[in-house]
Amino acid sequence: MAPTAGPGSKKGILERLDSGEVVVGDGSFLLTLEKRGYVKAGLWTPEVVVEHPAAVHQLHMEFLRAGANVMQTFTFSASEDSMEKWEDVNAVACDLAREVADKGDALVAAGICHTSTYKQLKDEARIKKLFQLQLQVFIGKNVDFLIAEYFEYAEEAVWAVEVLKGSGKPVAATMCIGPEGDLHGVTPGECAVKLVKAGASIVGVNCRFGPSTSLKTMELMKEGLQAAGLKAHLMVQSLGFHTPDCNKGGFVDLPEYPFALEPRVATRWDIHKYAREAYNLGIRYIGGCCGFEPYHIRAIAEELAPERGFLPPASEKHGSWGSGLDMHTKPWIRARAKREYWEKLLPASGRPFCPSLSKPDA
Amino acid sequence: MAPTAGPGSKKGILERLDSGEVVVGDGSFLLTLEKRGYVKAGLWTPEVVVEHPAAVHQLHMEFLRAGANVMQTFTFSASEDSMEKWEDVNAVACDLAREVADKGDALVAAGICHTSTYKQLKDEARIKKLFQLQLQVFIGKNVDFLIAEYFEYAEEAVWAVEVLKGSGKPVAATMCIGPEGDLHGVTPGECAVKLVKAGASIVGVNCRFGPSTSLKTMELMKEGLQAAGLKAHLMVQSLGFHTPDCNKGGFVDLPEYPFALEPRVATRWDIHKYAREAYNLGIRYIGGCCGFEPYHIRAIAEELAPERGFLPPASEKHGSWGSGLDMHTKPWIRARAKREYWEKLLPASGRPFCPSLSKPDA
Amino acid sequence: MAPTAGPGSKKGILERLDSGEVVVGDGSFLLTLEKRGYVKAGLWTPEVVVEHPAAVHQLHMEFLRAGANVMQTFTFSASEDSMEKWEDVNAVACDLAREVADKGDALVAAGICHTSTYKQLKDEARIKKLFQLQLQVFIGKNVDFLIAEYFEYAEEAVWAVEVLKGSGKPVAATMCIGPEGDLHGVTPGECAVKLVKAGASIVGVNCRFGPSTSLKTMELMKEGLQAAGLKAHLMVQSLGFHTPDCNKGGFVDLPEYPFALEPRVATRWDIHKYAREAYNLGIRYIGGCCGFEPYHIRAIAEELAPERGFLPPASEKHGSWGSGLDMHTKPWIRARAKREYWEKLLPASGRPFCPSLSKPDA
Amino acid sequence: MAPTAGPGSKKGILERLDSGEVVVGDGSFLLTLEKRGYVKAGLWTPEVVVEHPAAVHQLHMEFLRAGANVMQTFTFSASEDSMEKWEDVNAVACDLAREVADKGDALVAAGICHTSTYKQLKDEARIKKLFQLQLQVFIGKNVDFLIAEYFEYAEEAVWAVEVLKGSGKPVAATMCIGPEGDLHGVTPGECAVKLVKAGASIVGVNCRFGPSTSLKTMELMKEGLQAAGLKAHLMVQSLGFHTPDCNKGGFVDLPEYPFALEPRVATRWDIHKYAREAYNLGIRYIGGCCGFEPYHIRAIAEELAPERGFLPPASEKHGSWGSGLDMHTKPWIRARAKREYWEKLLPASGRPFCPSLSKPDA
Repeated sequence: MAPTAGPGSKKGILERLDSGEVVVGDGSFLLTLEKRGYVKAGLWTPEVVVEHPAAVHQLHMEFLRAGANVMQTFTFSASEDSMEKWEDVNAVACDLAREVADKGDALVAAGICHTSTYKQLKDEARIKKLFQLQLQVFIGKNVDFLIAEYFEYAEEAVWAVEVLKGSGKPVAATMCIGPEGDLHGVTPGECAVKLVKAGASIVGVNCRFGPSTSLKTMELMKEGLQAAGLKAHLMVQSLGFHTPDCNKGGFVDLPEYPFALEPRVATRWDIHKYAREAYNLGIRYIGGCCGFEPYHIRAIAEELAPERGFLPPASEKHGSWGSGLDMHTKPWIRARAKREYWEKLLPASGRPFCPSLSKPDA
Repeated sequence: MAPTAGPGSKKGILERLDSGEVVVGDGSFLLTLEKRGYVKAGLWTPEVVVEHPAAVHQLHMEFLRAGANVMQTFTFSASEDSMEKWEDVNAVACDLAREVADKGDALVAAGICHTSTYKQLKDEARIKKLFQLQLQVFIGKNVDFLIAEYFEYAEEAVWAVEVLKGSGKPVAATMCIGPEGDLHGVTPGECAVKLVKAGASIVGVNCRFGPSTSLKTMELMKEGLQAAGLKAHLMVQSLGFHTPDCNKGGFVDLPEYPFALEPRVATRWDIHKYAREAYNLGIRYIGGCCGFEPYHIRAIAEELAPERGFLPPASEKHGSWGSGLDMHTKPWIRARAKREYWEKLLPASGRPFCPSLSKPDA
Repeated sequence: MAPTAGPGSKKGILERLDSGEVVVGDGSFLLTLEKRGYVKAGLWTPEVVVEHPAAVHQLHMEFLRAGANVMQTFTFSASEDSMEKWEDVNAVACDLAREVADKGDALVAAGICHTSTYKQLKDEARIKKLFQLQLQVFIGKNVDFLIAEYFEYAEEAVWAVEVLKGSGKPVAATMCIGPEGDLHGVTPGECAVKLVKAGASIVGVNCRFGPSTSLKTMELMKEGLQAAGLKAHLMVQSLGFHTPDCNKGGFVDLPEYPFALEPRVATRWDIHKYAREAYNLGIRYIGGCCGFEPYHIRAIAEELAPERGFLPPASEKHGSWGSGLDMHTKPWIRARAKREYWEKLLPASGRPFCPSLSKPDA
Repeated sequence: MAPTAGPGSKKGILERLDSGEVVVGDGSFLLTLEKRGYVKAGLWTPEVVVEHPAAVHQLHMEFLRAGANVMQTFTFSASEDSMEKWEDVNAVACDLAREVADKGDALVAAGICHTSTYKQLKDEARIKKLFQLQLQVFIGKNVDFLIAEYFEYAEEAVWAVEVLKGSGKPVAATMCIGPEGDLHGVTPGECAVKLVKAGASIVGVNCRFGPSTSLKTMELMKEGLQAAGLKAHLMVQSLGFHTPDCNKGGFVDLPEYPFALEPRVATRWDIHKYAREAYNLGIRYIGGCCGFEPYHIRAIAEELAPERGFLPPASEKHGSWGSGLDMHTKPWIRARAKREYWEKLLPASGRPFCPSLSKPDA
């Protein structure tokens, strides 16, 4: 069981990473709460925070139990240009994250993301103002650190980091890009360099691409930083979906997005592999994005339990590598209670009329 | 929005079905709460009810919002032979279901299921005693009706119905069988006949098989009842997984069970089809079992909204047939905002090294 | 190496089968010669026999080398109602078959098939006249036995057997049906009974369905004959394509017919399995139909070499179970030189955008 | 119908290519004759040329009818280091090719390929001697031009070109590489440059990779030549198998090689696409290698009939784009008699337990 501690006494995000600890991130909010009935696909805004705070609280709790060390405020797109009541949403989201974080060894990270106006207008002052408005709420709530995430363009991400940096709190920055780089053609390596130079202490990717593709992008970021002689902590929060067939735009361009992605959902064993490979790459902040359910986060925590020295709370309800099946009455099901079985298994889709890959729409 | 009413003023389950109403059942508890971190695979017992009641309450809420008219008490396997604290679990489960049911137009159904001892001992007196013990709690909590579910053998299901029937409350009975019948070779038609003769007012299947297979079994049950000149209401609660490759034992014998079923998860559009076909078969109690998430239940309620005259609460967060995408900035994503698109789509698995079907282990 | 003998000295077909010998049939002519450039899809008539006899001679030679004991005259659809010059085609086809048969231990079997007029007119006299005309050529050429093949309707097949029977030569009769029976709903068992009663000494199926489906049909034929207390030799000549997704009409109703069947072509190892299962079912006349290339026939002869006591001539160019790879310079290719490797291999299609099954058009 | 002409009066290969004509190559010998029973997998040597010349003659005839303008002598690996009787094989192979070439508008090209000793010894003198020995036979038979093909290493290919060049006849040179280049890491562009500088008038790729991969390699060769300011004719002879999952070594490293490649065989429609794309890339010598059956070559000739002005002889047995089906009695089969149908069709494999891609062994 993870050591817990009262607020204030917790080690900060940089303290953890600097000392070589693995930090487990949390997972999917928008897509998960859409399936639970609280978020509208297409809008993808977090009004549930004020409409049904208990549903958000519950999801935070599940990630905490799964081993997450970070409670991200559910403030995605909660900016003045995207929704009404954005101010309330930001405030309540901070309270919800703090309330749950205090039940375990987790920090509160407040997040901002790309704006709807960047692509057309590229108005730096206007966009920085939007970020500033969210930041003021976060500062008022005294969050532990800040995340600028889901940026398609390095330029806008840099603006975000510059604003957040002003707060004095540690800043992480992730882009929603794949190995081909940002939508202006900036490579992953260059993106990482720009973000670190702007002030981010932690850089990486989130969303848009599946586990193996995201790790390829991370490798390129790492190489870019090394080539530039820069040091930063690495962070990855991939999709919980397999997307080997994506183009530069990622999973939103796949024909299955967003209502038929089910056959692509990763198993917990896929996530064990992802966690191990991320660790081996030198990444120490490892979490998930859309499609990453609590049991996927638990799989990260279980895979890296030897390194971390403890299992997450929810592992009391999970036999390592399927060992909970060893009491089953059917011998062929008992035979599945071992690592080798699940590592080798190639799961069928039950969909013989469907292809295995799709052609992206763009 | 569905009409709601205070407790007591609600129409009973038979009143609804007799008048031709569609009753939407609820969905998955064990597998869903396993993924949320509260149930242990292998054990599959509902101790979460007393350990983390908020998590159970939340799941009930999600099904209610999705349009379910029935809150099933989470009492699966909560009998004296399967777990300690079974009595507390049964009592609290009834309270949780009632608390949520009272927030909408839903009834509370208390459920019992097959026992771990039937297969070896076939001790009718002992097994009926186990059922009787659970029933006493249910009666004390004044649930609205009773469900005997997940029976592999018609004989044990009949014993369950006989016990429940003694309470005077309406009894529904479902078996976890496929078109090949129960594990003693009793056909679906014969099973249905036995259950109705034993006193069940509602009969059908739950679990173990996917949507299309379950509907085939229902067709055989319907034919069996017609041939025997019996009348009963029909009920179906299939898996939320596609299982065309199952043998008689159902999904537990598939190599992917229970930790790699992800590629088989039904889309919401698959469930629209299931709901419509179930309705066309004359089934009026339509819900789900393992793998049926809240958004799948919502899909039943949305497909049958024309017949029922209203949408479920959670449809405020769901554009019919993907219509919420019509404001998207990318034109190729806007093009997905229509029924024809999702009905025709054959979703890819993103798993080119995996087969589409598996050979069951038994 | 197979014992050979001059004409006249050869054992007849019934002599062979009565003594328990395995008779290896030949394979595909129409589809194979279409791919070689000599037969027109749609027409499917054998004018190549007179236009390019060397091409037909070569294909006969390949089947002889592969181990076939029967050279079927390429007279499919060469009747007065289907093509001009039918008389020449029948005569030359007999000569070509005889010329090659005399180079080894093979018999000449002359074949007739269903007519284009049966379905509309069902004019028994007219159809029997057509069969009679072909038979006269065959008798003049003194073929060794006769085959009535590719019948969709038991009634027309019976007419064919009745005509052929008049010649005094042994008669084999095969239908192009699957487990669901003929297109009038006559079951495989009933078809077999009718054919034997009409005078066929050998009955079975050819074409339209793949190996495993054809063997299911054969099992039903065998059971039908047993139930009726009849005895006959069994014969199977399946497609060389996998067709698990066929309906009653067989592969012609699949969307891939006839120009995109490639991904369905059986491997030689699939045919080993087919040959063994056919043998185990008691079938002793085992060959192929459309899609069965010479190497598929060789696979039958190699699988049953232990029972027959010899390998076919073409096995001088084939290492048993891939053993010819044992000299390869790459060790991972040498590792494929064994039975276990090829029996376990699940071959990929290299087509990630394609499904594994199709919905038949009818 | 193609214009034919007597020997001597025919235009040479460079005359044709210089004037912008499309030259259609021939297809598969080794794998095709293995399936016909005359070549041994593992050895892959052409002793059939002297053992069963009629079988080789027939295959040449089929490619000629399919529209091939080149009869390649079946002298693959027929060098002193790989087989006995290599001298006879080379001589007879030239005669067979000439005999058939003279029946139509085709040239005779004599081919040499990589040696078994290059990889270990890299003995230039020894290897050039081997090439020289084959060349002497070719010169004695007065072939029309020469092809150096199937080279894994640019260095060995250059040696071959240098030897062949000494004859004064036009030289084509193809490598069996993919987009990653030769096995020493020489890029496709560099390979092309080296071959042209060594004296090849025509350069390209053959074997080892499927149609779309081979065209990617050709694009890189073309770019390499352009960048170097060199001009040469381009030639492509891809596999008749889909191999999107290959690594650098090509299809021999796929687990299905060589006995379970069936599901990967291209349809004729895939080859139409290949021919069109090759043409659009500026390639004017378009043929096939292993797996390319006569009907695949016909598909090249049919796709490019508008550019060439005539159809090949075998098109008398082929309705363009399936039009031969328009007389079928079943309306749903008639509906397949059109281009749009076959272009859109995604053919199923009939193998639901198999994956779509494989992991190469190396």
